[in-house]
Order: sequence, then C-alpha cells, then structure tokens
Amino acid sequence: MPMKLEDQVLALAGAVQPVDQEAEAAARERHERLTKPSGSLGRLEALGVRLAGIAGRCPPPVPARPALVVAAGDHGVLAQGVSPWPKEVTAAMVAGIAGGTAAASVLARVVGAQLVVLDVGVATPLAPHPRVRRANVRPGTADLAAEPAMTREEAARALLAGAKLADELLEAGADLLLTGDMGIANTTPAACLAAAFTGRPAAVVTGRGTGIDDATLQRKIAVVEGALALHTPDPADPLGTLAAVGGLEHAALAGVCLAGAAQRVPVLLDGVSANAAALVACALAPAATGYLVAGHRSTEPAASAALDHLGLDPLLQLDLRLGEGTGALLATPIVRGAAAVLAEMATFDDAGIATPEAEPG
Amino acid sequence: MPMKLEDQVLALAGAVQPVDQEAEAAARERHERLTKPSGSLGRLEALGVRLAGIAGRCPPPVPARPALVVAAGDHGVLAQGVSPWPKEVTAAMVAGIAGGTAAASVLARVVGAQLVVLDVGVATPLAPHPRVRRANVRPGTADLAAEPAMTREEAARALLAGAKLADELLEAGADLLLTGDMGIANTTPAACLAAAFTGRPAAVVTGRGTGIDDATLQRKIAVVEGALALHTPDPADPLGTLAAVGGLEHAALAGVCLAGAAQRVPVLLDGVSANAAALVACALAPAATGYLVAGHRSTEPAASAALDHLGLDPLLQLDLRLGEGTGALLATPIVRGAAAVLAEMATFDDAGIATPEAEPG
Repeated sequence: MPMKLEDQVLALAGAVQPVDQEAEAAARERHERLTKPSGSLGRLEALGVRLAGIAGRCPPPVPARPALVVAAGDHGVLAQGVSPWPKEVTAAMVAGIAGGTAAASVLARVVGAQLVVLDVGVATPLAPHPRVRRANVRPGTADLAAEPAMTREEAARALLAGAKLADELLEAGADLLLTGDMGIANTTPAACLAAAFTGRPAAVVTGRGTGIDDATLQRKIAVVEGALALHTPDPADPLGTLAAVGGLEHAALAGVCLAGAAQRVPVLLDGVSANAAALVACALAPAATGYLVAGHRSTEPAASAALDHLGLDPLLQLDLRLGEGTGALLATPIVRGAAAVLAEMATFDDAGIATPEAEPG
Repeated sequence: MPMKLEDQVLALAGAVQPVDQEAEAAARERHERLTKPSGSLGRLEALGVRLAGIAGRCPPPVPARPALVVAAGDHGVLAQGVSPWPKEVTAAMVAGIAGGTAAASVLARVVGAQLVVLDVGVATPLAPHPRVRRANVRPGTADLAAEPAMTREEAARALLAGAKLADELLEAGADLLLTGDMGIANTTPAACLAAAFTGRPAAVVTGRGTGIDDATLQRKIAVVEGALALHTPDPADPLGTLAAVGGLEHAALAGVCLAGAAQRVPVLLDGVSANAAALVACALAPAATGYLVAGHRSTEPAASAALDHLGLDPLLQLDLRLGEGTGALLATPIVRGAAAVLAEMATFDDAGIATPEAEPG
C-alpha cells in the first residue's frame, strides 16, 4: 500500500542529514593556503565552506547547471482586496515567464539557468508549454480569511509535487536549485507563514507586495491578523500551519528545499515567498537550513523576518520585490564563484610564495 | 610635434561628455511599462537607467564581452614597513593572475570576462605572457614618505598606458571595462589619494590592507599622515596629487576610467585601488562619474570614503578585501542583468495585461 501523503512528507524531511562538518573544516583550512591574504574573500569564503559541507567534499563541485523552479498558484484571499491585480495576471505572467519575456526568464538566460514553471494551483487554465509542468492540486487556495487555505492533504500534495520536480531536475543533471514564485496575492500567505513561524506580529511582517497603497496595506494587515486569530496555527505542526494560512506555491517550494537538502544539493532562495517556504521546510527538517543559501533580501518585511529566524544572511540586497526567482538568479554567479575559487585557485605552495608568517625574518 | 603627455591627459579628460539624460528618461519610462510592478526591480532599474544614459540609447546594449584590466605596480613606500609581504609577491601574483590560478582568474572564467594584466610598474622582471601587457613606466614608485612617488610625466605616462589598453580592448569588441589591481603595499597610496581628494584624515581612511596587525596599522597611518604633510597635495591638481602620493597602477586605472567614459562604455569598479583611481579620473573629468559603476564595497575604509565622495553605491557588499578585480567580476552579471531586462522583457501591452491603474473599476 502506498504511503499516505503526509507520511511521504515526513519521510522526505527525515532524509535530510546535517551538512558535513569535516568537509567544512577542510574547506576552511584550504582557504588559508590559497594565494590570497587570509580571509580576504570575505563572505565568498564562508559560502564556499558551506558548499563543501553541503556536498560533503572539498573542494565542492562548481555548479554548472542551475535550475530555477518557479512555483505558481492563486489565492482565495485575493477576494479580501489585498492586491489590486486580478487573479488572471498569475496565468498571464506564467505565460511570460515560460515564454521568455518576464524578468526571471531574462535573468535566467543571463546567468545560464534552466527555468521550469510548476503549476501547483493556478486558477486560470494554462496553455501547454514545454517549460510549464502541470501538477495543479487545486485551482487556487480557499480564502484563508474565512477557512483553511487548503487541506493537509492538498498541502502535502503540493509539497511533494515540488520535491518530485526537484528530484527530476537533479536526476537530469541540475546541480544547484533555485526557488522562485508567481501568484497574485501570495505575499499575504507569506506574511501569515512568517508570523506563524517567527512569532512576529502581523503589522511587522506584512508589506506592500506589488506596491499597494496605505489603505490596502491596512486591510492586508487586518487580514493577516484575522487569519492568525482564526486558525491559531501551531508552528510545531508545520504542515497544518502551511495548510491553514499558506499557499500552494509555498508548499511546492518547501518541497524543493527538502528535496535539495535530502540530496545534498544547495538550494538558492529568492524573495519573500521562497523565504516563507523555507520556514516550512526547516520546521519539518531543521537540518535543511544548512542547505539553503539566501540569494537576496527582499524589501518585503516577512522576508527579513524569515531569514533572521533561519539565521540566513542574503548575498544580495538590491531592493528587489518581484519574486519569480529574480534575486536567486542574480546571486547564482556568486555561488559558482565561491565554489570555483576553492576548486581552481592555486595554493601558496603551488605558486612558490612564502607567506609572511612562514618568513624567516 | 606630438602633444606633451600631460596635455594628452587633459585632452582625454576633455573628451568625456555627460551621460545622456534623454536616454535615461526613456529607460525610466520603459521600466514603467515592463511586465512587473513599478519599481519592483529596485536597484537593477536604476542601474539600467544609467546604462542607457552611458550608451546614449534605450534599451542599452547588453554587455557580452566584459574585459578586466588588472593594473600592476610596486611601491617604494613598502620600505616603511606598511605591509609584511615582500615586493616579489607582486610579480608572483601577476604570474598567477595571468596564468589562471588567482582569484581574479577564476572569477573571470565564472563570469566570462577577458582578463589582461597591465604591468605599469612591477619591480621584479616578469616573464612574457600573452595575458600580460608590458608598459612599465618605472620599476615601482619612489617612497612617497620621502619624495614624490613619481614625476608628473610618469603619472601621465601610466595613466595614458591604461587608457591605451582600454581603447584597444574596446576596439577589439569589449563592451564593459572592469578595473582591478595588484601591487604589494598599494593600499597605502590608495589611502593617501582618498585623504587628498576627500579631505578625510589619515586615521579614517587608512585600513588593514592584507590584514596587518595593530602596530603595522599605526605605522601605516603615520606614513599616510606624514606623506600628506610632506606633499600637501592639492586636489585641484589631480595629476600632481597622483604623482606625489599615488601608485602607477592607480594612474593606469584612472586612464581606464577616462577612456571608458570618453567612449561611452560603462566602467565597473573593483575595490579600494580602483576607487582611489576613480577619484583621480573624476577630479580630471567630473562627468566621468556618470560612467562608473561601483561593483563592491571593500572593507578597506578608503574605499567607502572614495565611493561616498563620488556618490557611488556599490552593487555588492561581500566583505572582500583582495582587489585584483574580484569584486567587479562578481558584479558583472548584475550589470548584464540590468541591461538585459530593459532589452528583453515584454511590456504589459505586449503581454495583453491591463495594469491596475488602467482598470475600469
């Protein structure tokens, strides 16, 4: 008999092992011998150390085939007036992302990343496209202001759809996973998830999303507050919290995080939706945090709340607030660079240079 | 009769025209129509606007052939004990940078940049190498603690060598110039230049370079203070200031900045040496600032002093303090991305999406 969906989620979470501390120590030691002053590559060194810990070897592999999963879904809470954009824009933007004309598509070409859209819950029917994977759990969530956004089984199904796609991408040769999102109104469930997992109040974690005005922001904060009061989500029950106040794309991205972590591949996070999804993943499997690299600090406050909670310091801060994976894409060359310097730089011994400490006088 | 060297510098500076405000306005307007919420690409939008202004057209060209100039030189001030590394390390590191095993070489491969070392003043004879251009003005500067680092003519010659190499790279198809440096002790003249052009005191702009101890730092501050007192450099005489307290590689990089600006090509700055060189270039041609993009904020305090003075906000802050062009290289994909979104994203009209403001209700 096949495992229940929820048990499959727990099995996936249980497969995540801590990063390899010996490989990290080896990378630290190697960095001391490379032809540069000690510590002079700053955060690139710390990132390289982590990449060694993730891969379990030093030097770590240099990511050659990054793959971005753009999880897409709609949100019943849009009915509460939390965004001025109609839900049809989710499908239109998915068409653009897959078609090559959205910001993420352009930046994916710039950094040489594969891009796949995962439809886990777009309300508007999508035309088939080679870059769109259909795993539609339901045509958008229910209105979390009135009822749970989805059932536990639906949340598990969307999470496993993300994990399955990640596994397939890795099987096909991807060596770095990037998480992106598309879903009109999805910063509202992101704020709910951030509040639920970090304990911060709605007014602190709720932001302007696409750029809403003051009145809409006040309405959005009230919606987040109301949802937390209605569902009283328990962070010790990550799947229940996700089901009550999350989104289908957050569920799918949590699955991408867990699959990457379970397979010891780094997962490069984008903005607020990806950060909220990471909260779910790390609540299910705390060791997963070690496999996550924060690409960019979104201006959306829930993003910083989530990153602080996870102890992640983003590589970039370019004031992006678009999602789609744009921040993760821009950070991709830095991840490659961090691995490449460990793999390809000469040591002082190789170069025949004596370090000052080793000098006789 | 050929122009005097100093007059050639003035002619180069005089060729720098302001960036094109109409092209910038067109890029701003275009960003409002692209398929994303207004302003949601943050600093990527501002950078794209600037790239349009630099090129004088919208969309700006997407840099396909970035070229890094690593200017290298030695420094007589090393005799004052400002660094624990011997001057022979400059030549050894140049060999590594050209040979493909230094940090800059590795990162140049990661981002697809051409790399050329410009020897404007390495003291140790260098073996010929296809990636090393010899334009050695003198085998290292004089000790700026005791006498001018170089003559005005030498400063002009090194600056023009940088400009000439930049021109040749552009002629050969380069479309983005990156500035890097190699020179043991070169953060001391960088601090002197920062103090001279920004007016900040030696103790504020002088940093630990490769990671010197407290005693060496105190000595270095005293050297910078002493040099400023000895030469009383006048920032209104940029070439005289450069000659008195600068380095040959700073001169060459100032030439790269001016050549890029004169030819309306963006110049992506690396760390403290490149920032100090940019101070010289912008003192010679204030409009050159518009063509400079700060890649990374070095931890060296003279870097921030220079960037603040120039009004440049770096794209990256990864705590690098290596130079060689590493920070500029890591920022290269962001520059490409900023141009590419303007060039390749669809507009809302293209995508058939009505923006909320245009909605009837």
